Amino acid sequence: MTWKSIGIFDSGVGGLTVLREIMQVLPQEDTLYFGDTARVPYGSKSPETVTRYAGEIASFLIKRDIKLLVVACNTASAVALPTLKRTLSIPVVGVIEPGARRAAQVTRSGRIGVIGTSGTIRSSAYTRAIKRLNPDAEVLTRACPLFVPLAEEGWTDNQVARLTAETYLQELKDAAVDTLVLGCTHYPLLKTMIAEVMGPDVTLVDSAEETALTVAAILADKKLLRPPSEKGNHSYYVSDIPAGFVRVGNRFLGGKLGDVFQVSLDEEGVIV
Amino acid sequence: MTWKSIGIFDSGVGGLTVLREIMQVLPQEDTLYFGDTARVPYGSKSPETVTRYAGEIASFLIKRDIKLLVVACNTASAVALPTLKRTLSIPVVGVIEPGARRAAQVTRSGRIGVIGTSGTIRSSAYTRAIKRLNPDAEVLTRACPLFVPLAEEGWTDNQVARLTAETYLQELKDAAVDTLVLGCTHYPLLKTMIAEVMGPDVTLVDSAEETALTVAAILADKKLLRPPSEKGNHSYYVSDIPAGFVRVGNRFLGGKLGDVFQVSLDEEGVIV
Repeated sequence: MTWKSIGIFDSGVGGLTVLREIMQVLPQEDTLYFGDTARVPYGSKSPETVTRYAGEIASFLIKRDIKLLVVACNTASAVALPTLKRTLSIPVVGVIEPGARRAAQVTRSGRIGVIGTSGTIRSSAYTRAIKRLNPDAEVLTRACPLFVPLAEEGWTDNQVARLTAETYLQELKDAAVDTLVLGCTHYPLLKTMIAEVMGPDVTLVDSAEETALTVAAILADKKLLRPPSEKGNHSYYVSDIPAGFVRVGNRFLGGKLGDVFQVSLDEEGVIV
Repeated sequence: MTWKSIGIFDSGVGGLTVLREIMQVLPQEDTLYFGDTARVPYGSKSPETVTRYAGEIASFLIKRDIKLLVVACNTASAVALPTLKRTLSIPVVGVIEPGARRAAQVTRSGRIGVIGTSGTIRSSAYTRAIKRLNPDAEVLTRACPLFVPLAEEGWTDNQVARLTAETYLQELKDAAVDTLVLGCTHYPLLKTMIAEVMGPDVTLVDSAEETALTVAAILADKKLLRPPSEKGNHSYYVSDIPAGFVRVGNRFLGGKLGDVFQVSLDEEGVIV
């Protein structure tokens, strides 16, 4: 029998931090990753535009017969998940809900900070998800638009990164949050710096690991897991030329990135 | 008789610095501006992708009967101009050539620095254009990917902007350039900071003004100028929802932005 793949998409390379966790938790699974590198970033774009792009990519991956779709992009999870869940017949997993759940579990004081792109923060998706789990939680949010370009520039431990982090995070420090959700898949690259600025008493929550566990639970529940004796294959599609994706992606995955194919999609997710 | 408009496009709001100069030099002309805000930025994307996007936008504007097309985006000027000039029957003006001409005119030492997005710098378009005018010129280039997000964040005069500018510009200072081309339409917003970091002996070249003079010269030569007694109308199209464009655009144009329409283009530049 042939086993279907897990489909994963992001606006670019950031979602590879989620793929990496899925590969660790479920090494037997085949994966198809789509990075929308021709239209990255999503964080500054409108909900309508991001939802349209997400729909095109979902159609493309579904044509390749995936059994579950991971929206490994916080902005797309924040704005497009309801539409994708309503229109697709396979399970759809975003990164917001798992990150929110973990934050609600680990906080002691109930004061939780969330940082992300402008789109993610404006959507209030984390605040709503955390308050559904813990209505008494106080959620403080801050958009950090410079963190993605800093991570992509490789400026993760210099003075510019430190000053930027200090500027963005001061309010959250003043508010004495005890938990901080890294609400963007790029931010783990700045984790050391963010941890230093926030101090040792603040727990950082990275959604990727929790998302992978959610994927494993859903596939187990639906009896769709491949036997653990298998070894998964991993394919990558991008919408711009692969060079930049391959360079940064190998850094994200520790040099284990396989073949990357370039495709151009129309509104129905058909290659044009 | 009806007069045709001048078409202008950019990946987003940056090209409004060019439009502003055209409105000053040619207040009698109607203009159509297109900002590709759903796919901004172009600077990190491949030449193939940027050329495809530029072709779609050019088709859209030509359907609205423009008499001249201004590519008010350094990245698109650097990579897509030859294709646009070859395929369109109207004059096409980029921002690279005018900026290069001005730099070649004002330099005394022949040592010219150029800063821009990764795409513009990688293309070597400024270096080639300057060396065509002055083969003895020494051209030193530096990509400054963080300048656009800094300008859009409004961080133009804080410590992060200063440190970023010092980091990017140190090599060019060490090389003792006497002229620096701001090879990205966003960079004029950081002009004060860049001037401070470079010092009083370095002349900054902003392409916008020279581009407007080139447009005026071409239209005069072809007898396509409207009578100076007329008053131009200005329309704006964007590919994402207009809110962000209107906010930043009014800052660029001093509150004079008119109506902004959202359109979604297909491969032939037709609204979908």
